[in-house]
Amino acid sequence: MNKVEHIGIAVKDIENSNSLFAALFGEKHYKTESVESEGVITSFFKCGRNKIELLQATSEDSPIAKFIEKKGEGIHHIAFAVEDIESEISRLTNEGFRMIHKKPKKGADNKLIAFLHPKSTNGVLIELCQDLQD
Amino acid sequence: MNKVEHIGIAVKDIENSNSLFAALFGEKHYKTESVESEGVITSFFKCGRNKIELLQATSEDSPIAKFIEKKGEGIHHIAFAVEDIESEISRLTNEGFRMIHKKPKKGADNKLIAFLHPKSTNGVLIELCQDLQD
Repeated sequence: MNKVEHIGIAVKDIENSNSLFAALFGEKHYKTESVESEGVITSFFKCGRNKIELLQATSEDSPIAKFIEKKGEGIHHIAFAVEDIESEISRLTNEGFRMIHKKPKKGADNKLIAFLHPKSTNGVLIELCQDLQD
Repeated sequence: MNKVEHIGIAVKDIENSNSLFAALFGEKHYKTESVESEGVITSFFKCGRNKIELLQATSEDSPIAKFIEKKGEGIHHIAFAVEDIESEISRLTNEGFRMIHKKPKKGADNKLIAFLHPKSTNGVLIELCQDLQD
């Protein structure tokens, strides 16, 4: 893991939150993207070398809808950049961490992603992500 | 705000969590620090240019103890680096954000810090921090 690639924030209304975070950072989001397999709309803000991803559920059974129902709006996950996601999944599994995804899947922002289960990481939902070549 | 300075994670037992995060990052924490005014012990991990701060409460009325009681262990706050914390507090107050600290205070890691109230930032507890000169 070589950096925090982004921090994901669960929001109820992405339009309102886009305005709020634009006021916070002094700069608008630079893209939006829909990830149908996850039932989310996302928007991305830059903060120096890091990114903040806002996530709004598009269906009631989206993981984001369930998160907000249980915990309210707020920080949802931390994503760490990795060079080789398959070897990182093996390393972490050998260390005793529990993967939600044992195989990487396609995520937002042209990445391969895999999540660790927060029960094995002090309640922190952690995403691994590897850049896909264009 | 020019980068994510660190991400704060509330933990129950910092010794156990130091081992857990060392296994996660493949590298041990590089320092620990006690912040008596906040009732916390902290430890810091490097992840590229970013830092992860673990926080364990040292008293029952510590904000970290209250957070864990309410929400469980997990991501507690995001800290953004700022050049001039007083002017950033003014700018954000003028934008309508609610500050927990209207004046900066001394925090861990030789910083001046101030928190925004999560009610004004989609449930996200945000810390501003400015490096203090040695």
